[in-house]
Amino acid sequence: MAERSLIFPAEEFRSRTQRLQDQMRAQSLGALLLTTPQDVFYVTGFLTRFWESPARPWFVIVPASGAPVAVIPSIGAPLMGRTWVSDIRTWDAPHPVDDGISLLTETLQALLPQDADIGVPMALETHLRMPLADYHRLSAALAPRRIVDGTAAVHRIREIKTPAEIAKIRHTCAIAARAFDRVPEIASAGTPLDTVFRRFQSLLLEEGADWVSYVAGAAGQMGYADVISPAAPTPLRSGDVLMLDTGAVCDGYFCDYDRNYFVGQPSAALQRTQDALWQATEHALDRLRPGMQARDAHRILVEGLERHGAAAGAGRLGHGLGTSLTEWPSFTPHDTTELRAGMVLTLEPGAHVTDDHILVHEENIVLRDTGAELLSPRAPQGGMML
Amino acid sequence: MAERSLIFPAEEFRSRTQRLQDQMRAQSLGALLLTTPQDVFYVTGFLTRFWESPARPWFVIVPASGAPVAVIPSIGAPLMGRTWVSDIRTWDAPHPVDDGISLLTETLQALLPQDADIGVPMALETHLRMPLADYHRLSAALAPRRIVDGTAAVHRIREIKTPAEIAKIRHTCAIAARAFDRVPEIASAGTPLDTVFRRFQSLLLEEGADWVSYVAGAAGQMGYADVISPAAPTPLRSGDVLMLDTGAVCDGYFCDYDRNYFVGQPSAALQRTQDALWQATEHALDRLRPGMQARDAHRILVEGLERHGAAAGAGRLGHGLGTSLTEWPSFTPHDTTELRAGMVLTLEPGAHVTDDHILVHEENIVLRDTGAELLSPRAPQGGMML
Repeated sequence: MAERSLIFPAEEFRSRTQRLQDQMRAQSLGALLLTTPQDVFYVTGFLTRFWESPARPWFVIVPASGAPVAVIPSIGAPLMGRTWVSDIRTWDAPHPVDDGISLLTETLQALLPQDADIGVPMALETHLRMPLADYHRLSAALAPRRIVDGTAAVHRIREIKTPAEIAKIRHTCAIAARAFDRVPEIASAGTPLDTVFRRFQSLLLEEGADWVSYVAGAAGQMGYADVISPAAPTPLRSGDVLMLDTGAVCDGYFCDYDRNYFVGQPSAALQRTQDALWQATEHALDRLRPGMQARDAHRILVEGLERHGAAAGAGRLGHGLGTSLTEWPSFTPHDTTELRAGMVLTLEPGAHVTDDHILVHEENIVLRDTGAELLSPRAPQGGMML
Repeated sequence: MAERSLIFPAEEFRSRTQRLQDQMRAQSLGALLLTTPQDVFYVTGFLTRFWESPARPWFVIVPASGAPVAVIPSIGAPLMGRTWVSDIRTWDAPHPVDDGISLLTETLQALLPQDADIGVPMALETHLRMPLADYHRLSAALAPRRIVDGTAAVHRIREIKTPAEIAKIRHTCAIAARAFDRVPEIASAGTPLDTVFRRFQSLLLEEGADWVSYVAGAAGQMGYADVISPAAPTPLRSGDVLMLDTGAVCDGYFCDYDRNYFVGQPSAALQRTQDALWQATEHALDRLRPGMQARDAHRILVEGLERHGAAAGAGRLGHGLGTSLTEWPSFTPHDTTELRAGMVLTLEPGAHVTDDHILVHEENIVLRDTGAELLSPRAPQGGMML
C-alpha cells in the first residue's frame, strides 16, 4: 500500500483493526475505547514519548467497522495526521472544566446506538489512562449505552504478534545483544554499579535503540537480593556476579532480557545456579508448545530448575513482550491463558543461591507451531566474563 | 535523623506525610489511597524503573496519622523495606483471580471506621494505576466507606517543593545544562536527527542522569510543525533551527527544558522569533509572583510575546515540574490554581514563525516570595550556534 503511515504501512494497522473488530463482534461490543500508549499505538501507529507527560488524556475509538477515530489533545494533531487515521477530533488540553469529555461523549453518542456496549480494557494488567472522575462523567453521559470489560477483545488480538511486529522485536533484541557483548568495555572490578548502568544505556543507544525505557540489574558475591532497585555507586568486586536487564526500544518495540557477568572466577554456588538457570531455559525451549497454558510454562521452568538441583525463586517466570516491557500472559501457577503461535514471550527463571539471594536469567522467544524460536541470541551456558 | 531511607532522610518523608495528613484532616479524609509512581515515591522514597511494567498494581495508604502502609507485590518488598515504611503487606502478583484486592480491602477495613471517606486522586492530570474492574470491586467491598476525590489534598502538598526537592531539580537541570553545552560536539549540518537524539541521550547519561525519560525535538528551516514526533533520520541542513527538549532524571527528579540551536546563520524570521521568546521569558521572570493564578502566567507570557511582535502558539505555556515530566498547574487561559512560593514551574512560550511552524523556548524556575528564581541556567538570548 502506498498510503502514508508511521512505523508500518497502513495495511498493517487496517488488518489489526479488522481483527479487533472480529473479536468485538464475537463479544457484541459496539466499540472499543482505548486510552493507553500501547493500545493507541497498536491501532494507529501514533508513537511519541510525550505520553511521559501525565497532563492529558488521549482517546481512540475503534468502531464496529472502519478506521479508528481519534479524540485527542490538539498538540497531537500533526503527528496523528501522519498516521492512517483520518477522523481526528481535538480539544485544547489540559482544560480544568472539560478535558475532552464532552467531545468524546458526543463522538461516541453519534457513533453508537443507545443499546450499544462499549468495551474498555479493565481487567488484569490494564489500567485506564484518564482521570477517574472524568470516566464517571463519561459513563453517566453515555447511558443507556453501557461500558463493559473489553480486555479480552484487546488481549486476544494484541498477544498474537504479526510478522512485522516479530521483526521489530527481533531487531530490538539484536541491538541489545550488541550492547551486552560490549559490557566488558564499560565494566570491570572497581567500576561503580551506577556508572555501569549509565554506560550500558549509552551502549544501547549507540547500537541503535531509540530510547531505553528500562535498565535494571544488581551485583553481589552470592547473587542479588533484589532486581528492581536503582543502582548504588558501589564498585564491582572480584567474585561478584553482575546482572544487567534491559527493556530497550526501537520503533516502539521492546526487548526484555538479561545477562549475568562474572567479575573474575565465580564461586561454585554461582556457577551451579547459573548452569541450572540455563538448563531450565533449555528445558522450556524444548517443551513449550501452542495449546499449553501460561501456568504450564511456569511448571516446566520450575521442573527444569529442580532437575538441575536449583530451587525456583518466587514470582512469575516469564511473560508476554511487545510494545511494553511486559505484557500478559504471566508464567505463574495461576494463569490459564492459552499459549498460541505468534506469541512473543520471555522465559525468565529465577533460582536461589542462598535463602535471600537469587540469580535470574531471561531470553525472548516467539512461539511457533513447532515450538519456541529464540529472538534474543542464546546466552552462553556459563554466563559471561568481565 | 539516622533512620534508614532512600533518596532523602526519613524525616523528609515523615514531614511530607504529616503535611498530607493536615490536608486530609481539613478535608475530612480518613485515608489516602495512592497508586502512581510519583505519589508512592512522594511519601515513601520507593523509586524504581520497574513501574515500566504494567503487570502489577502497587498501593500505598496514607492513614490519618502515622506512617504510610504499603500493600504491594512481593517483588517490591526488599526495596520498600529499605524506605522508612515498616508496615509492608505483600502478595504474589500478578494473580488473575485476586491481584491484591482482598489484601488491600482487609487493610483498609482494619484501618478505617465504617463512616470514613477514602481519598483517591481522580481529577485533572491524574489517573488510577490499577485495573478499573478491581477498583469497582474494591469500592463495593469497602462500603459503607466511600471513595472520594483526594486530588486537592495531594496536589496542594506536592506542588510546594521542599528545599531538598528543589536541590534535586536544580541538580538535574545542571546535568542537562552540561549536556546542552556539549551538543555542538554531536550535531552539525549533515547529522541525521535520530542520531542527534541518540547522542544527546548519551551526553545526558555521561553528565550524570540516571536515565532519560524524555527527549523530544525537531529541526527545520522555519521552525517546526510539531514538537512531539520521534526523530526521523533526516540530516540537519544549514539554515535549520534544531530544538532539543529533555526530561532527564536524577534521584527521581526531572528537569524539563529545551534549547534552540542554529545550524549556521539563521534567517531573520527565526532570529526575530527566538528573540521574542527570550524576551517573553524575561517578561515573565520579572513579573511572576506568588498569589497570581496559573492563568495569569499564561497571560503574562502571551503579553510578552505580543510586545515583541510574536504570535503565541496554542496550548499551555508552562506547567509544574518535579517527580514527573509535567505536573499541574498548567499555564492556560483556564487554570485558576494559585501560584505559591515553593512551586517549581516551567516557562514555555511558543510562537509562530509561519502559520504552521513554531519555535519554543523553555526554562525551569522555582517561585520564591520575591519572584522567579531560575533552576535552568538562562539560555543565551540569540539561541545557540552549531
